[in-house]
Amino acid sequence: MQISRRAQEIQESPIRKLKPYADQAISEGVRVYFINIGQPDITTPETVWDAFKKGKEDVLEYGPAQGTLDLRKSIAKYFNAYDIPITHENVIITIGGSEAIHFSFSAVSDTGEEILIPEPFYTNYNGYAAFANVNIVALTLDVKEGFRLPSKNEIERRITPKTKAILLCSPNNPTGTVYTAKELERVVSLVKKHDLFLIADEVYKEFVYDGNRHKSVLEFERIKERVIVVDSISKRFSCCGARIGAVITRNPDVYNGILKFAQARLCPPTLEQKAALAAYQMGVDYFEPVRKEYQKRRDILYEGLKDIPGIVMHKPQGAFYIIVRLPIKDCEHFVRWMLTDFRFENETVMVAPAQGFYRTPGKGKDEIRIAYVLKEENLKRAIHVFKAGLEKYMSLF
Amino acid sequence: MQISRRAQEIQESPIRKLKPYADQAISEGVRVYFINIGQPDITTPETVWDAFKKGKEDVLEYGPAQGTLDLRKSIAKYFNAYDIPITHENVIITIGGSEAIHFSFSAVSDTGEEILIPEPFYTNYNGYAAFANVNIVALTLDVKEGFRLPSKNEIERRITPKTKAILLCSPNNPTGTVYTAKELERVVSLVKKHDLFLIADEVYKEFVYDGNRHKSVLEFERIKERVIVVDSISKRFSCCGARIGAVITRNPDVYNGILKFAQARLCPPTLEQKAALAAYQMGVDYFEPVRKEYQKRRDILYEGLKDIPGIVMHKPQGAFYIIVRLPIKDCEHFVRWMLTDFRFENETVMVAPAQGFYRTPGKGKDEIRIAYVLKEENLKRAIHVFKAGLEKYMSLF
Repeated sequence: MQISRRAQEIQESPIRKLKPYADQAISEGVRVYFINIGQPDITTPETVWDAFKKGKEDVLEYGPAQGTLDLRKSIAKYFNAYDIPITHENVIITIGGSEAIHFSFSAVSDTGEEILIPEPFYTNYNGYAAFANVNIVALTLDVKEGFRLPSKNEIERRITPKTKAILLCSPNNPTGTVYTAKELERVVSLVKKHDLFLIADEVYKEFVYDGNRHKSVLEFERIKERVIVVDSISKRFSCCGARIGAVITRNPDVYNGILKFAQARLCPPTLEQKAALAAYQMGVDYFEPVRKEYQKRRDILYEGLKDIPGIVMHKPQGAFYIIVRLPIKDCEHFVRWMLTDFRFENETVMVAPAQGFYRTPGKGKDEIRIAYVLKEENLKRAIHVFKAGLEKYMSLF
Repeated sequence: MQISRRAQEIQESPIRKLKPYADQAISEGVRVYFINIGQPDITTPETVWDAFKKGKEDVLEYGPAQGTLDLRKSIAKYFNAYDIPITHENVIITIGGSEAIHFSFSAVSDTGEEILIPEPFYTNYNGYAAFANVNIVALTLDVKEGFRLPSKNEIERRITPKTKAILLCSPNNPTGTVYTAKELERVVSLVKKHDLFLIADEVYKEFVYDGNRHKSVLEFERIKERVIVVDSISKRFSCCGARIGAVITRNPDVYNGILKFAQARLCPPTLEQKAALAAYQMGVDYFEPVRKEYQKRRDILYEGLKDIPGIVMHKPQGAFYIIVRLPIKDCEHFVRWMLTDFRFENETVMVAPAQGFYRTPGKGKDEIRIAYVLKEENLKRAIHVFKAGLEKYMSLF
């Protein structure tokens, strides 16, 4: 009576596994600044809460497997406002961006086939790849190069006969990189040349700073049937706990395959879709002050860190993460030590060791990811406490 | 650029695929009685809606991957009230019973391995098996025998070296059968003998009539580490659209494996867990009038159908479904015809063709499943219209 290999081999969430140390610190009365996970502190819009209040019916019924028509239409309209020509018939509502990833992996590949992903990457891709028995092949990027995509040749070298898709996440979690049109072009041409799908995780698409804008892979008409976009309301509307995402595809076979996966799990939560609809009805203007707030936070974090001797980092162009190479050998040990041993005026900080964002063994051991999800005052204090901890750690080890 | 084999091969929901014909009838002004799916019309408890109203916080945040501690505790307590000794450490909250099925399949088996399930069975097992690349082996039961489990030898004959688990659903969807302690014993001893897991879908456990009670496989202490129970609030509290279920296991390896699957999808919806908590706080007494209502409906349906010449059925002991063998050759054709061609005083009825509940090709073509999910007056009318349709159909084909 042994559990399955996939249940044994699937990686424990590297972000969540250190959580018990933080819980222990809190139980001892220590204040912990959490800049380890992408849980924003932006207030969830009032209209979302109102939708929950007003959502009452006689019976809390199943909805359609592909999500409610209203919500699918409003998502299409939202993309249209960014000049992306999709309709509700290209949209399937998913239970969070997570399910959109799982469905996408499963729709393009079978057991043992490969999906090529630049690393470091969002750690849950690993979880879903293991769960779906798909192999991730990593294309290693470098913090020194600002995690830019390499040349076409270098990308092509990682494509094998088993490769079914390339996955790009832009704006990127965990690096904060926003790929340029030129970088995207390289991947688009390879996707076409090697007859692949392009899965694009664009859940941070509004989180782009310095007056730049995000280019969606949906804008490349010549590969329109190859593109599957993963979307989510979690970060956009600060609704992480709602678990509403979407798959967007203009490929009818992919759409129908994913619809059948969706039918097996019946439907996304009914009331949460009403809440999401209310959020979309705010229109694209809602996001402007949110973007400004995050740009300010990014600047505070970047300026706050840059005088640390021996670190390597690039200013993020989007999302709300940064990867920082520290002049220490084992960042997981450092992160744990911060939670168990280090106190600064009875406070400490939790960041994420970056190793879990790499597929290649040994990579990222000297890097951390910081999420700038706290408001100015708390973020400044967190940086201060973090720097004090790093200094102390380096004097000890 | 081909989609995956699993996306091609996964069965379209046989229940949902006829829905467009019903929608068409409705758009023509026809009243359709839906007794094809398990969507109860029982009012969702007020306390559930109140929980949504009162659930407001500043930020709609991620919750724990395994579900909130409060809800896990209240589910354990609910089972304790049925004399089943579990704790919250045996409970993982899932996104509907659907996810509990998917997690269970994936935790016990890898690609190409087998799960043995008596057929007819809940059609979504097929979906998740395809999605998880697991093979379902069917143990065919017979409507004439009231879908009772066969002898130990006959069950054993279907076990192969690839079998990893047996799945039992009791009270059963789609047959309404409630397995006796004796029947369960047979399976329990085989599970032990062949070193298997026992997955038990017990989401209808309160839906047992005539003063009988449901015996949970969790009561068999000698296989306590082999048991995985699939649970859900959907039917129990008429909360289908909430998508809250649970996996219950006292096997630490299974628990940890499923916890890692759960971490990959981050968490179940936050507010829906508050609503579920409120539902559980009503206690076990809440269900008594609901049970009485369903028993009445079962009697109305059974009495209403039994004078149809040439049909074969058994009185269901639980859940809210019945499988009926009709004296016609192709029930899918009949169901579609009812929606497209048959009108009785501008009304018609939608039932489910039973073929989709069988794995074995050709089985169930002459059977339908009826869900007695309508209140007395509507159910009586639906039976009347159904019988008129069946008579007409038999005179035509």
